[in-house]
Amino acid sequence: MELGRLNHIGVATPSIAESIRYYRDVMGATHITEPFDLPSQGVKVCFVDTPGAGGTEGTQIELIEPLGPDSPVAKWMEKKPYGGQHHVCYEVEDIEEARSWFEGLGKTILGPTRIGAHGTPIFFLHPKDMMGQLTEIMETPKGGGH
Amino acid sequence: MELGRLNHIGVATPSIAESIRYYRDVMGATHITEPFDLPSQGVKVCFVDTPGAGGTEGTQIELIEPLGPDSPVAKWMEKKPYGGQHHVCYEVEDIEEARSWFEGLGKTILGPTRIGAHGTPIFFLHPKDMMGQLTEIMETPKGGGH
Repeated sequence: MELGRLNHIGVATPSIAESIRYYRDVMGATHITEPFDLPSQGVKVCFVDTPGAGGTEGTQIELIEPLGPDSPVAKWMEKKPYGGQHHVCYEVEDIEEARSWFEGLGKTILGPTRIGAHGTPIFFLHPKDMMGQLTEIMETPKGGGH
Repeated sequence: MELGRLNHIGVATPSIAESIRYYRDVMGATHITEPFDLPSQGVKVCFVDTPGAGGTEGTQIELIEPLGPDSPVAKWMEKKPYGGQHHVCYEVEDIEEARSWFEGLGKTILGPTRIGAHGTPIFFLHPKDMMGQLTEIMETPKGGGH
């Protein structure tokens, strides 16, 4: 496998509304998407765009707020009530090929391949096999962009 | 202030050598810099390049291994012996201006402005004021690049 683009880093927050104010008023972000619910992952989601090199789109910040107490992110936040860095997400060209690659290496895949926040197939890998990082693998959206 | 490029995310590891094998053999990275000691931060450091959009340089992964038991990262890793996501680093055009900006907002700055792993001035902000993320602010290297 070849290392793909770092599409986004996932940042958990107790309040997306508060995080949006933070990224806008403290960090100076100008492009923040409208939050929406992603019930399949148990989270409310929005993206903060960061500038890339040479006027391109950079790695995004994915803000995730637990939709309820049963959300996996709610459990994660029990130890980190203020939120913080939750996962990293790399792009791949072909999600099935990537899944086979990680399976072949004996990595623990968390659940089935499903549709993620960008509308393309994704899966997650357990941090214990990924040097401590919860890692999302995401198929690059067709037609580029993010 | 205007949000700058997400220069890198800092990932702590008990062993840079092991992390390099992981990024090369599991994640498929092809560009990894030689590790070097950064005694001012108490860490050994190297960078994994990720591809950006349109053939540009993407956000880097900064691998940090504690140089010894007194390293701030060693303390951090007591609770996370396998390592994991440690900090995020955003670029700014002018480090003094950025420092004044965060000071004016009452944010807790950790220590003096100093020279970071890319050879430009940096400072760190306390996660408690930054929505749970230890945040590094780094002046963009002159002449572009990273």
